[in-house]
Amino acid sequence: MSFTCFTGGRIVTSTGQFDADILVENGTIVAVGSFPQLDTDSIELVDCTGKYVLPGGVDVHTHLDSPLMGTTTADDFESGTIAAACGGTTTIVDFAMQPTGVRLTDALDTHLAKAQGKAVIDYGMHMCITDLYDGATQEFGEIAQAGVSSFKVFMAYRGTLMLHDGQLYDVLRAASGVGSQVCVHAENGDVIDRIAADLVAAGKTGPGTHEIARPPATEVEAVERAIRIGRMADAPLYFVHLSTAGAVEAVAAAQGRDWPVAAETCTHYLTLDRELYDQPGFEPAKVVLTPPLRTREHRDALWSGLSAGTLSVVSSDHCPFCFADKERLAGADFRSIPNGGPGVEHRMSVVYGKGVAQGRITLEKFVALTSTIPAQQFGLHPRKGHIAPGADADLVLLDPDGTTTITAATQNQAVDYTPYEGWSLPGSFDAVYSRGELVARRGRYVGKAGRGRFLHRATR
Amino acid sequence: MSFTCFTGGRIVTSTGQFDADILVENGTIVAVGSFPQLDTDSIELVDCTGKYVLPGGVDVHTHLDSPLMGTTTADDFESGTIAAACGGTTTIVDFAMQPTGVRLTDALDTHLAKAQGKAVIDYGMHMCITDLYDGATQEFGEIAQAGVSSFKVFMAYRGTLMLHDGQLYDVLRAASGVGSQVCVHAENGDVIDRIAADLVAAGKTGPGTHEIARPPATEVEAVERAIRIGRMADAPLYFVHLSTAGAVEAVAAAQGRDWPVAAETCTHYLTLDRELYDQPGFEPAKVVLTPPLRTREHRDALWSGLSAGTLSVVSSDHCPFCFADKERLAGADFRSIPNGGPGVEHRMSVVYGKGVAQGRITLEKFVALTSTIPAQQFGLHPRKGHIAPGADADLVLLDPDGTTTITAATQNQAVDYTPYEGWSLPGSFDAVYSRGELVARRGRYVGKAGRGRFLHRATR
Amino acid sequence: MSFTCFTGGRIVTSTGQFDADILVENGTIVAVGSFPQLDTDSIELVDCTGKYVLPGGVDVHTHLDSPLMGTTTADDFESGTIAAACGGTTTIVDFAMQPTGVRLTDALDTHLAKAQGKAVIDYGMHMCITDLYDGATQEFGEIAQAGVSSFKVFMAYRGTLMLHDGQLYDVLRAASGVGSQVCVHAENGDVIDRIAADLVAAGKTGPGTHEIARPPATEVEAVERAIRIGRMADAPLYFVHLSTAGAVEAVAAAQGRDWPVAAETCTHYLTLDRELYDQPGFEPAKVVLTPPLRTREHRDALWSGLSAGTLSVVSSDHCPFCFADKERLAGADFRSIPNGGPGVEHRMSVVYGKGVAQGRITLEKFVALTSTIPAQQFGLHPRKGHIAPGADADLVLLDPDGTTTITAATQNQAVDYTPYEGWSLPGSFDAVYSRGELVARRGRYVGKAGRGRFLHRATR
Amino acid sequence: MSFTCFTGGRIVTSTGQFDADILVENGTIVAVGSFPQLDTDSIELVDCTGKYVLPGGVDVHTHLDSPLMGTTTADDFESGTIAAACGGTTTIVDFAMQPTGVRLTDALDTHLAKAQGKAVIDYGMHMCITDLYDGATQEFGEIAQAGVSSFKVFMAYRGTLMLHDGQLYDVLRAASGVGSQVCVHAENGDVIDRIAADLVAAGKTGPGTHEIARPPATEVEAVERAIRIGRMADAPLYFVHLSTAGAVEAVAAAQGRDWPVAAETCTHYLTLDRELYDQPGFEPAKVVLTPPLRTREHRDALWSGLSAGTLSVVSSDHCPFCFADKERLAGADFRSIPNGGPGVEHRMSVVYGKGVAQGRITLEKFVALTSTIPAQQFGLHPRKGHIAPGADADLVLLDPDGTTTITAATQNQAVDYTPYEGWSLPGSFDAVYSRGELVARRGRYVGKAGRGRFLHRATR
Repeated sequence: MSFTCFTGGRIVTSTGQFDADILVENGTIVAVGSFPQLDTDSIELVDCTGKYVLPGGVDVHTHLDSPLMGTTTADDFESGTIAAACGGTTTIVDFAMQPTGVRLTDALDTHLAKAQGKAVIDYGMHMCITDLYDGATQEFGEIAQAGVSSFKVFMAYRGTLMLHDGQLYDVLRAASGVGSQVCVHAENGDVIDRIAADLVAAGKTGPGTHEIARPPATEVEAVERAIRIGRMADAPLYFVHLSTAGAVEAVAAAQGRDWPVAAETCTHYLTLDRELYDQPGFEPAKVVLTPPLRTREHRDALWSGLSAGTLSVVSSDHCPFCFADKERLAGADFRSIPNGGPGVEHRMSVVYGKGVAQGRITLEKFVALTSTIPAQQFGLHPRKGHIAPGADADLVLLDPDGTTTITAATQNQAVDYTPYEGWSLPGSFDAVYSRGELVARRGRYVGKAGRGRFLHRATR
Repeated sequence: MSFTCFTGGRIVTSTGQFDADILVENGTIVAVGSFPQLDTDSIELVDCTGKYVLPGGVDVHTHLDSPLMGTTTADDFESGTIAAACGGTTTIVDFAMQPTGVRLTDALDTHLAKAQGKAVIDYGMHMCITDLYDGATQEFGEIAQAGVSSFKVFMAYRGTLMLHDGQLYDVLRAASGVGSQVCVHAENGDVIDRIAADLVAAGKTGPGTHEIARPPATEVEAVERAIRIGRMADAPLYFVHLSTAGAVEAVAAAQGRDWPVAAETCTHYLTLDRELYDQPGFEPAKVVLTPPLRTREHRDALWSGLSAGTLSVVSSDHCPFCFADKERLAGADFRSIPNGGPGVEHRMSVVYGKGVAQGRITLEKFVALTSTIPAQQFGLHPRKGHIAPGADADLVLLDPDGTTTITAATQNQAVDYTPYEGWSLPGSFDAVYSRGELVARRGRYVGKAGRGRFLHRATR
Repeated sequence: MSFTCFTGGRIVTSTGQFDADILVENGTIVAVGSFPQLDTDSIELVDCTGKYVLPGGVDVHTHLDSPLMGTTTADDFESGTIAAACGGTTTIVDFAMQPTGVRLTDALDTHLAKAQGKAVIDYGMHMCITDLYDGATQEFGEIAQAGVSSFKVFMAYRGTLMLHDGQLYDVLRAASGVGSQVCVHAENGDVIDRIAADLVAAGKTGPGTHEIARPPATEVEAVERAIRIGRMADAPLYFVHLSTAGAVEAVAAAQGRDWPVAAETCTHYLTLDRELYDQPGFEPAKVVLTPPLRTREHRDALWSGLSAGTLSVVSSDHCPFCFADKERLAGADFRSIPNGGPGVEHRMSVVYGKGVAQGRITLEKFVALTSTIPAQQFGLHPRKGHIAPGADADLVLLDPDGTTTITAATQNQAVDYTPYEGWSLPGSFDAVYSRGELVARRGRYVGKAGRGRFLHRATR
Repeated sequence: MSFTCFTGGRIVTSTGQFDADILVENGTIVAVGSFPQLDTDSIELVDCTGKYVLPGGVDVHTHLDSPLMGTTTADDFESGTIAAACGGTTTIVDFAMQPTGVRLTDALDTHLAKAQGKAVIDYGMHMCITDLYDGATQEFGEIAQAGVSSFKVFMAYRGTLMLHDGQLYDVLRAASGVGSQVCVHAENGDVIDRIAADLVAAGKTGPGTHEIARPPATEVEAVERAIRIGRMADAPLYFVHLSTAGAVEAVAAAQGRDWPVAAETCTHYLTLDRELYDQPGFEPAKVVLTPPLRTREHRDALWSGLSAGTLSVVSSDHCPFCFADKERLAGADFRSIPNGGPGVEHRMSVVYGKGVAQGRITLEKFVALTSTIPAQQFGLHPRKGHIAPGADADLVLLDPDGTTTITAATQNQAVDYTPYEGWSLPGSFDAVYSRGELVARRGRYVGKAGRGRFLHRATR
């Protein structure tokens, strides 16, 4: 019997905060409160005085060691999960991509193997579907049984990733039939391709054009369409990386009718402005993300959407490419630049600093958005995202008086830039525990590779 | 030092459930979990094996010992809180009515005095405003400081209770200015009065006509109007007793825009049908409630509204009159019948039996709707509505295999009927604890009058 | 037999334009086209070569010789209808106000008497209801039979003009019952009164404050409410002088459901900006109109509303007071300044110049908005607002190459200012015929007082 | 000089009705009214006493001699236009289909040739695009210049007719650029194909299954999507054959924002019920139309949409196949049955009988929906759809006291059934004139083949 007691901290959950100790046995929380008769001699004590104790972050949108747009994302499961841990995130759910022509179960096995021996925190997987071959949906049950209870589809990127509406319907029906949900990348890719082609034909080829080719309405339309198709399929939907006011409206309208629609936004849509596309030279390529960054009006709508509960998750959409590689791979025009950017390490810091510290959201809401609700949404609750008896002791000590400074030079992400370069934010995640074990201290990794476990996620 | 430990139960909160013990010291929860080194000899044990342990119910809409429509409600603070406790409710928030011509602070004192020495569970007060004399809003600060951080206004009953839109605006501004919220009875009373007059003129005077005189649109319009006025006043709103699909839509639209609008519905709107108004004789008077019962279509919309989170509270609107008194007071037509009915005792049983047992809502949602959210909404959280260190040990043991049978003959409410007569429902609230003390067992009162304490509720 | 033939012009109706002659007999159009065998010797010819021939303007919102806010409007039926004629308007519908305590039929007779011997063009009347005494609605049938098939109510000005919602419901029911419609002044007067009182208490008393006291939401709310009440009463509604984007949205939503809701806006809301309230001194009093002028955003929404057909009438809301009188009557604060301004003379010129000449609307749409639709809406069609056999020969010759210059010094309106001072607009209404008789030429009156006839308007 | 005068009738236009004569010279209306000095000796007189005189019907949705679903529609330009004329329609706009691999201009020439020497009334053409080859949009200007100022695209029928969203965007951009509009068949074909495949896999193969495979939401989604894409392309849209309440809502919302969206419904959606799909045997194949017939709820919404102006055109979607051919071509399941049915002959009678005679719409509205607005919408106004000087003398004499009986045995359409078999309707279109020439009398053809002229339609 091995006990640890986190004492003297102020516990914060998604529904409140209170002063209490946390008793942990073999990595699992067994009690919360004050324990009058506890023999502290036999127990390891962790002094949390003056700190907030939060459930570790849950980031349900990462792309580690993943083949995308002709290259592979820059972080593998080791560097990626180290970065996550150093940033206060103790659980990720990564996307297993299906290369064209590969069976889903094989693609899943391939991606699972990449995590083996490398992950330093616990992880789950979503299954991405890009090639709906005959019989593909019949494998959904097996995949769900393996603990992968969510699928992802793309409504953009014709020819590589995109499914058409009939296939989306099929995936929704089949996933729902095995108690799984479907994550949707909602952009009208066909219209985007035409707008982009017109722009290139007009000589607009620079990296900042990426944004012009993906106007807000291309997202809004796709969200509305997917909601309709979800209704026809009688299946729940989860929208990844929403970026626009119109998308928030569409989701709110569906939720108001009690349709099972959930949605996330990402750190960068909440905090970065589209003006970055107006920078000179190749600099805008750093924020060639999909969907692109938007104006303040949209950003305000996203914060309101979080506040209203319309958007219930903030993820990183960590999809890292080195700036050098973006430049190397860029061909004749912006369409060849790999889409994506780093973020798993700074999600918690940025959302805390720009959200809680600036009074936009409460600390409880922060916990809800970055930990509790993503865990609930993806079948990880009550094991993850919660501080209560029975939960894993994934705990983060937050010093509200600390400061976090972000620079590419000091980050753990294996990329040569960060869009938050030089930001100095109030609050620091001083110590990060995964199943009771210290894995990061003051932004530096102190764990060991391979200790992270695959999370078998529940179906509905 | 006096400890009690509730052992072996399955704890249910609004966000999850888990097996754990609850350690209570002097009426307050000090720890939750399993306590490896606890010396159980010195501790009183309550065996909860096989039971769900829930936070006690919080009913934020009762009218005890209250002057209304020319008479006084049938339950005083003793019989009313006994009935509440026997039904699993450990906190009420009652309405202090302002008689015309009486200062608000005086009216509040009068109502507080009625509770003294009588209440068997803890209670808070809302302040009803029916006569907005010059200077009335200047007393709001004092009232809020006294722990009464919510006001109520009526958009119906011209000449007795109704405020006009300008007064509603004033109340919203002033209440918001002192960190208080405003509960709104939303019906277009002026239109209702005309429809009612036309019906009476046409010879339709029977008790069932009450419903025809208050069509759904009279509620929907008032809800929409109050939302607009709330926006102009930049103040939050709480709608009491919503009954219609259109009202749910209006509230959902406002919430989707992140406007601070919350809303409750009541037990009877969720479970009783307007067909009761078609009964012969004076029988319909039993459900002469305001607003009236509606059709199945509206009922379904209310359940959907709860599921979607649009409606976040289920209250009883306990406003009891004996059937004999309804008959005695009825004059020439339905307009003189006192509006209201009993319900504080059966709210938890009916919502559990018709909601949880029939699969409409989860047990966690039940806790949220009947306890946690009302406590949060009205400044009682985390002391009430929660099972966590620091909370009052207001605990209810629910036996999911038990049965609750409702009859007027056996009820604790001081009235001669119940609209749920003869209902037999799955689930029984076997033991009810208020601050660690047993106050009811198997629907029978075992506490003592006057032990209930006034709850000083927080402002925002 | 007396024939006149208007030859060589280009006829414009609400649905198209074509070159044709118009044959008129005794003031009535008998044929339109080219008449191969016409003996032109016996016929008076009016050469219209190079001109557009339009149906004369129909202005359904004027206040002539009318008691309002403690004074009387500055134009009587002679000066007012002369001004109308000189501006291309050949029909008005004026408001018969009901002073408090006066029977409706008496008030109507009083107002009809004021027009006798004075009006130089044809006129109808609306009946304003400000005091709904017992039995008032029983006179509606008689009033409708007298050719006054529309009533008007105010949702603002408590204590003088305002009816409450129940009275609005009554008026809608009764009017609808006799085939009449109800014109609604939609502003939430009670909220406005409170905002105004707060402003005055804060020392904001100047004339420009008038606008701040009537924010857009006060109009939007009232429009939404009236639509709901109209539905409950199962009666059609006509909104006068809409000024906001939100009101347009509300009306569009109702029309989209095929509810019988129609709406007008006025010349000034389409062309003048709220910046006029920021002028120094008492100057803003010139545009102390109700509702007030708005921002460009609202103005654009009004033009869009016209284009979409949501708004179908442009009226003047001619309610003239001399600037000198506004100043004289202004008391301690802006609330005493008479609300209203002149406009009947310049409605056609301004809407043509700012609408047609600037490409916002077509010439056909101009005819529809200023003549045909108001005539249809108020039971004057096909006699007025149309060029076809059987219609009155109310004809206007428009020279698209002419210019109209507006100044107080040269206007026919009996006031000492115009809000369009110094405007020079493309297009001139060179000749104006009422029932075949020339009444104005190049903006100068050439008719004779008393020739105008009362128009008995049809019910539905 | 050859004059005809239609005397004594009551003229009905879209905006009113009045008693007048119509003077016609060489097929063109030259005057309307009463002509005091007309020498009737030299003029042919047509006595219209007791009749309504309407502008001839304009049917903008027919498929004559058209290759579709592996066969050719049953009526060629002779039988089809004879049927039209006999039913009171004097103008059609037919669809020129593009077979896969054929250039647009070639496909148009082919279809124009089919009409040569056959059409008995005037006709225009829409250009259908089913294969958007490289450079296709560059031919749009030439096509528009040839008088074909509208294109049509399909959002259903993948593999044969369907364009994807990017192609729809391209077509909208290009058409708008040359002043042309785009007609959209709005159904989500991809989802329909999957639903249909699932139904067939479940053994549901009968003709009535056609309806189940195309639920209302498949139309609503496509309408919403096309509206969004139209906005992105900044181009007007015209929806053909809308059938659902949700589509009407979506169009109304767009129009309320002043977006350039227009829409038609068809005779059968207004008058036939989906119960026809429940008939035994192969009988339901008679109404295998796309989209399918709907329930009463949808039908009521369509009538309301017409009344509100949201839907502004009623067309026939005449797409005739013999029942015998439907049976012959049906393969293993309902998916092979040719989609379409006859209707050009009975559109006017059915809409008059079910609409005007039953009080749903006025006679003026009937003229607007079946003649004036379709003419305006498609660049035929003021030549067609209007009774005014300059218009073609396409005139129909309606006897409101007559009766029209519909049977396959007596119809002029070259098919062996009609979905209106045995209907007896009030009103008969007794005489039909095309450019002043009588072409049909009492439902029997009296014209001559080849007299119909191609109509060069205006761009915007």
